[in-house]
Amino acid sequence: MSSLSNRQIKLGARPVGLPTPSCWEPVTGPARDPEVGEVLVKVLYLSLDPAMRGWMSDARSYIPPVKLGDPMRAGGIGVVVTSNDPALAPGDYVYGWLNAQEYATLKAASLTKLDPAVTPLTTYLNVLGSPGMTAYFGLLEVGRPKSGETVVVSGAAGAVGMTVGQIAKIKDCRVVGIAGGPDKCRRLTEELGFDAAIDYKAGGLNAALREHCPKGIDVYFDNVGGDTLDACLARLAMHARVVICGAISQYNATTAVAGPKNYLSLLVNRASMQGMLVFDYADRYPEAARVMGGWLAAGKLKGREHVVKGSIADFPDTLLMLFKGENLGKLILHIADA
Amino acid sequence: MSSLSNRQIKLGARPVGLPTPSCWEPVTGPARDPEVGEVLVKVLYLSLDPAMRGWMSDARSYIPPVKLGDPMRAGGIGVVVTSNDPALAPGDYVYGWLNAQEYATLKAASLTKLDPAVTPLTTYLNVLGSPGMTAYFGLLEVGRPKSGETVVVSGAAGAVGMTVGQIAKIKDCRVVGIAGGPDKCRRLTEELGFDAAIDYKAGGLNAALREHCPKGIDVYFDNVGGDTLDACLARLAMHARVVICGAISQYNATTAVAGPKNYLSLLVNRASMQGMLVFDYADRYPEAARVMGGWLAAGKLKGREHVVKGSIADFPDTLLMLFKGENLGKLILHIADA
Repeated sequence: MSSLSNRQIKLGARPVGLPTPSCWEPVTGPARDPEVGEVLVKVLYLSLDPAMRGWMSDARSYIPPVKLGDPMRAGGIGVVVTSNDPALAPGDYVYGWLNAQEYATLKAASLTKLDPAVTPLTTYLNVLGSPGMTAYFGLLEVGRPKSGETVVVSGAAGAVGMTVGQIAKIKDCRVVGIAGGPDKCRRLTEELGFDAAIDYKAGGLNAALREHCPKGIDVYFDNVGGDTLDACLARLAMHARVVICGAISQYNATTAVAGPKNYLSLLVNRASMQGMLVFDYADRYPEAARVMGGWLAAGKLKGREHVVKGSIADFPDTLLMLFKGENLGKLILHIADA
Repeated sequence: MSSLSNRQIKLGARPVGLPTPSCWEPVTGPARDPEVGEVLVKVLYLSLDPAMRGWMSDARSYIPPVKLGDPMRAGGIGVVVTSNDPALAPGDYVYGWLNAQEYATLKAASLTKLDPAVTPLTTYLNVLGSPGMTAYFGLLEVGRPKSGETVVVSGAAGAVGMTVGQIAKIKDCRVVGIAGGPDKCRRLTEELGFDAAIDYKAGGLNAALREHCPKGIDVYFDNVGGDTLDACLARLAMHARVVICGAISQYNATTAVAGPKNYLSLLVNRASMQGMLVFDYADRYPEAARVMGGWLAAGKLKGREHVVKGSIADFPDTLLMLFKGENLGKLILHIADA
């Protein structure tokens, strides 16, 4: 065992509703030394994702649930401390499933080496990471927006939503974001170029959609589900495409998920609703990273990271910020410097 | 005015829930003589369709609602009595929007001339009419079944569902029908070649779907909505396609439509749900009629019409048979002979 002390946040119990402190088991023990082919990584940044709520449940889903007693699954960025694999050397920055802990020992082959000279490290958890890939493939492959069409995105001030809206602008669409609170909405229009932003907390979502989408919604990128999904379904244009990317409004529900009661709008408008999962596009990540890297460099696309500075002990509370809508942009927990 | 007396069933009031007698206004008056370009048609057969319930409401939909005081909209087959257009002659059989009345005066150009020698006239209201076209394009263009896949269809003993299942068999799929009652189910498997039929009224729909769709559902053709849609969503295979063709379980609901609470299965399985409306394929009806006419002639496809013999006064009660699940196959009201 390494002499390094490793604090971990393990999943102690499956949540009912919002995750409470009793779901978590903070544990401290020695970090494990890397075997042949492995490296020991010091965790610097951890990604907080709405999908984590699903991974904490034992319902059948697209990946197995986190096992009780395992460190919580989390993508992260770290720096290699000890290497037992020729592909990585101490000091190398890496991305991978580092999980909720201070040190991760894992196969070198499971990690992606990052170049900190190209872009700030946190970009690899945002525009050049899963949220960016989700936005890119979800919008372009499933939403298929055409120039001049109206694209609406919910969770617009979140990591995926912000990038969806900006890509839709690059593709010459009219872009309307739905977010919670006037500050988030102001930043979407003033800083990120959205044509309009609707504060769903202000009420009157249906009327606002009528006002800002006079020709209906051609592409609706849904991150939230619930009433927002229903309001957008009611406003679909003919042959609209609804991208189901997430449903954050439903993840902590203790009753049955609210199904979209306006789903028959799909029939009236010959529209489609399709689920997407970013992992399916893994073989095309390099293509997307190249394209979006170009947009970033050209200033056409902006990444916004909401970095919380703390320790691994802050992981549970930081996660809750997502479900309380307290983040603007990609939520990241920064637990150490290299 | 013609000397012919014309009984009509007009829409007197918009229904709440199941249409009641007070929704209808039976009226008798003279038939109108045809102007230039028009013909006077004696109505022989009227089509009864689940979609009629929607046409009676004033909610925004894919066609305008029937106006209060107008004869109820209905497709039908008739024989030309008087013609004021060179394209049609007395004695010609025609299909068109004849509506709920004994005589229809309308533009010759709005009618399709039928050949009674080719097939029984009622086939033009079933396999070679809207239900058949709906099944053909909904299944093949939206469902896109591949050989060996599992296709589930609800409302399987109805006009659309029966044809969907038979076309899916022709396309080498495993076909499971969902219908109400053991008699309907028996006829689907014994007479129409379905691999299995599930009686949703018997309970245990989820277990039955697990049993009969061991590899999950690749294509679900939904005519009913409600709990059946939810059960099928829970059983989707990866990359499944859900065709939303109708939602008969919801048409008479007096509360909000029940949204599919399992819609996030679309995300987990990267599946799609798409609405379809047959009118969009109108320019391809001849193609479908040719193909399906061939299958009919070869005995690969069977049309089943449930013909109620009566008068135009029976229109309201016959319509209710659809919503009570009393029809097996295409429901038709036969009100006169040529």
